[in-house]
Order: sequence, then structure tokens, then C-alpha cells
Amino acid sequence: MGRYAFGVDVGGTNIECGIVRPEGTPIWRSRVRTEPRKGNEHVMALIAGQVREGLRETGIPAEDVLAVGVGMPGLVEPLRGVSIRSTNLFFRDYPVAAKLMELTGLPVYIENDVKLYVYGESCYGAGRGYRHVLGLTLGTGLAAALVNDGRLYNGSGCPGEIGHIPIDEIPYPCGCGLTGCLETAVSATGLVRQAVSALADGSGDHADSLLAKLYPDLGQLTAKDISDAYDQGDALAVAIMERSGRLLGRTLSYIVPMVSPDVILVGGGAAQAGDRLLGPAKETLYASIMPVYRENLAFVTGELGSDAGVLGSAKWAFDRSAGE
Amino acid sequence: MGRYAFGVDVGGTNIECGIVRPEGTPIWRSRVRTEPRKGNEHVMALIAGQVREGLRETGIPAEDVLAVGVGMPGLVEPLRGVSIRSTNLFFRDYPVAAKLMELTGLPVYIENDVKLYVYGESCYGAGRGYRHVLGLTLGTGLAAALVNDGRLYNGSGCPGEIGHIPIDEIPYPCGCGLTGCLETAVSATGLVRQAVSALADGSGDHADSLLAKLYPDLGQLTAKDISDAYDQGDALAVAIMERSGRLLGRTLSYIVPMVSPDVILVGGGAAQAGDRLLGPAKETLYASIMPVYRENLAFVTGELGSDAGVLGSAKWAFDRSAGE
Repeated sequence: MGRYAFGVDVGGTNIECGIVRPEGTPIWRSRVRTEPRKGNEHVMALIAGQVREGLRETGIPAEDVLAVGVGMPGLVEPLRGVSIRSTNLFFRDYPVAAKLMELTGLPVYIENDVKLYVYGESCYGAGRGYRHVLGLTLGTGLAAALVNDGRLYNGSGCPGEIGHIPIDEIPYPCGCGLTGCLETAVSATGLVRQAVSALADGSGDHADSLLAKLYPDLGQLTAKDISDAYDQGDALAVAIMERSGRLLGRTLSYIVPMVSPDVILVGGGAAQAGDRLLGPAKETLYASIMPVYRENLAFVTGELGSDAGVLGSAKWAFDRSAGE
Repeated sequence: MGRYAFGVDVGGTNIECGIVRPEGTPIWRSRVRTEPRKGNEHVMALIAGQVREGLRETGIPAEDVLAVGVGMPGLVEPLRGVSIRSTNLFFRDYPVAAKLMELTGLPVYIENDVKLYVYGESCYGAGRGYRHVLGLTLGTGLAAALVNDGRLYNGSGCPGEIGHIPIDEIPYPCGCGLTGCLETAVSATGLVRQAVSALADGSGDHADSLLAKLYPDLGQLTAKDISDAYDQGDALAVAIMERSGRLLGRTLSYIVPMVSPDVILVGGGAAQAGDRLLGPAKETLYASIMPVYRENLAFVTGELGSDAGVLGSAKWAFDRSAGE
């Protein structure tokens, strides 16, 4: 019987990889640059290379590895092991599982990366001990996943794309074809978009903002800069964080009555904005849901960082190998 | 082995009861007035009486009945068999399952009535053949339930209360303590509320509406009257239906990206407004979701009527008896 699983989290920037024990302990970890522009085959070879390296460095024989779990961004078909579409990675109807099985000789199971991130945090991180976890990844984009009684929620194809809920108050067109999608304002890129839009509106209202002074050409502005300006009391930065928090809280108030979670768990890079953004989000959410939801609803941030996706992917590999 | 289950759907007006075979065929049906003001014990006695009557009329021996499934309005705790709260029935922390077991000598399993309605339609009605069903009951209020791969979705306590999502555009205070809850406008009572509010606004804008002429005192107005006025081209009735449909469609566009259903199934009394309300709802929904959701999303109305809750409750009894 295999005693280990590989967990692989494939992002647009890095591939995170680990060998994990059934109880969620990573005994080996690695990170390599994805360089997705070098093509799908290159990304597959990188993952297979990490699997070989992990086995060599730990001395674990391949027959002690049950399977490889892989979290892929975008739309995936877990049963067929196919990546249907992944904006950052240029995969399209690509047989990830089959290809990696060929390269590694191990069973491979894939799922959406947001689901496996939330699964990791639910099983081993900030969601531990909660029965119904609504997890969000707030990074370049915004998405969510549900874990109920330890099981990943599966709808038809792609549950959790809450970044593509259109909100009246948001004016920006979205790459998906809709207008006003939540993630066009509430995400790392969305925060920047709001700042650029406010600074460029021609009224000069924000000419004295730290953000205007930091980056006269605005091309270099990051979400981190907005957090920093917020900490120095910059009015524009404060307004952007509070507005974004309110929009997120309002959107969560649309979802909570439907899914009735015990905890909302927020992770991802832009979650580092912390209470600057999540404070107003929580306040708006709690004011907009019935007591029956409010009273037992915790609100936490992820605690596993880049391990979350690796552990979630490995858990997925264990589950699927056991026929779950 | 028991070959039958009782399905009981307890409403504020009627109690629907049936003896059902495992494949979902009702072989006996009854309906009695609930008269909830006569008290909890009275309601329990009514249900037990129907169980006895069903056995007597069909000649089925009690040992051939596996269990009784009961759909209760409001907040229930299925595991303990307790009705926590039910606005129309005045139950509060009442041990429905224990009491009915005492009265009937049969195992009793309870669940929320909306969930069991949607479960019935999913297993035997308009949701048959769809893997992920988002079902709505549009009646006096508005609520929803999810069935995924044949399993009722369970969150923490009370998933599906989408009637209590607060919507900016809706001005009415709700009994739950929030303002602008969807069901204060989109439900049988909500449609009437909108009409009364428009007719009473003092501007006289709608003085020539059929609705004003029908009921000068407005106290008798029903959702059916608004449908009838709509069919005669009444501008106010048309505006109310279209606005309500848009609000419903918009709210569904908040939920669909999270739960990713294959079908939206609408039942309940107010669903009889049909395309007058569901037409604009569908149109707004489809315009506000990504193609990946839109392309495979069916939109149907319930087809089992009052049998849906009975069949869903009986199925729940079969499931629970089998340890599911």
C-alpha cells in the first residue's frame, strides 16, 4: 500500500510540489517557475521532473506513492483528467492526467486549484474543525469553493466563480464578456484598477494622493502599494479598501443564505490586505444576513500559505485512490 | 422489510399525506386542513390520524411501512427530529419525530419542507435526469434547495433562504429584521405588496389600473388578481411582474456562479404566474452569467404539484431508513 501522495499546485507563476503523508504532513517540498509561455509540454515535464526529484531526494521508492494530485487553474474535467481552459497557462482541452501518468508512471488525479486550496485549508489549516467551509481565494482574481462535511462541493462543471458575479455598482468590463464582475474591482488587479481609474478621471480630486506621487505613470502600481498608502492614511487608498470590502461583504451576503456555511475562509495574495479590506467586508456581511446565519458564522484567513494547495492536492490524490 | 413509506408535507394551510412505494409511486393520498392555531398537539394528532387512516384504507400492515418522512416549514434539526421554528405553525423547539413515533409506532424522519419539495421534484418530477438541481419554491415566501448527484445539499442549519437576501432596490422591511429581503417583493405576498404600495402612493399614477378598480380597499388583492390584470394588459400589473422577474433573475445570477446547477426548477403557488414573471427572470439571469453557466442551464417549472413534497418526504424516509 502506498504511504505517500504527491500534491502539485500549478500556478501561472510557480509550480508548488510536495510529498505528503496521509495525515497531511509534507515530508518534502519544492517550488519551480512555471514559465507557461514555453508551452504545455514544458509544464508537464517540469511537474514530472519534480516528482522524480522528490523521490530521489527522499529515497522513497515509487511503489510507496499512491498517486499524484494536481490542482490546475481554470476549468477542469476531473473524471477525464483534462484541463479544459486555463487563462494563465494556455492549456486548452489538454489531457493533463494522461500525460503525467505517462511521464511519471503514477496514477494522476486533477481538480480545480481553488477547490484544492480550500480543501487543503479545510482539512489541515484554518478551516479545521468547521463542518461547512466557504473558502475564497482573493488574488489576481477572486473565486470560491465549498467543503461540506469534509467533501468538496461539486456542481455542474465550475462552481465557485463568484468573481464573475456582476455587481451594479462596478463599471468595469470583464474579460469574460460581462460587465461589472466582482473581481474587476475586488482582487489585486481590481484594487489597482480602481486606483488608476480614480487617478485618471481628470478631475484632479486625487492629485495629492500618495498613490499619484508614488507612480506618476501608474503602470507599476500594485495592491501592496495601496495597502501601504492606506497605512499612511491616504484618503484614496482608504476609500478603495473600504469600497472593495463593502462590495465583497455585500456579495457574500448573497451567497451565505444559499450555502449556509460555518466559516468564511479567505486566502490568496490579496488577502494580505487583511482587515483594511476584510474589516469592512465582515461588517457589511454581518449586517446583511439573518441572525441564524450571523450567530454561528466565523470569518478567518488562510494559514497554510503555499502549502494549502499542495496539501489539498495530495488529499485529493489519497481520496481518489481510495475510490471516494 | 418495509415496502412502503409515508410521506407527509406539513403546510400552514394543509397537511398532505401519502403512502409511497420505493420507486416513487403514491398508492394512497390524503389532504387535511392544518388549523395550526389549534396547537402543536393537534397537528401531531392529525398526522398520526392520517397514518392510521392510510393503513386502514389500503389494508397495508404497519410492519410493511419502513418509516414516515415529514417535511416541516422553517428551521428543523433533522438529526434530533426537532422543529426549531416555523412561523406559520407556531412550533418552537418541538420534538416532532419523537412525538409522531410515540403516536404511530413508526420511525419518523423530518426535514425542511422546501428541501423535501425540491427533492421530490428532483427524483420524480421536473428535475429528473439533471445531476445538479437548484430548486425554488415561490409561494407566500421564497426559498431554495439544492440536490447534487441525488443528494440533498446540507449546509449549517438552514441553507436555501434566498428569500432573505437583501436587495438594494427593494424598500420593504422584512419580518426577519433585515430590509429589502427578496421575498418581500418576489413572492405571492410580495407581488401584492408592490401593487398596494404603488396604488397607495398618493400620486394617482395608477388610479386607472384594473387593480385599483377591482379592490378599492386593496385588502382582498391576491397574486392571482395581478396575473389576471397582466393578461388584460394592465400597465401596473405588467410593471410589477417584470420588475419582480428581473429581481429574481438578478438574484439567481448571484447564486448560479457559486453552485453551478444544471437546472433551475421553480415550483410553489406563485410560480403559477408562469412566464409573466419567469420570462423576465430567465432573460435577466441568462444575460448576467458567463457562457459556461448559461450554455447548459435549463429552466423548468415543477410538475408534481402537491405530490412533490409527499414524494420527497417519502424518499427521505427510505433514504434515512437505509442509513444514508
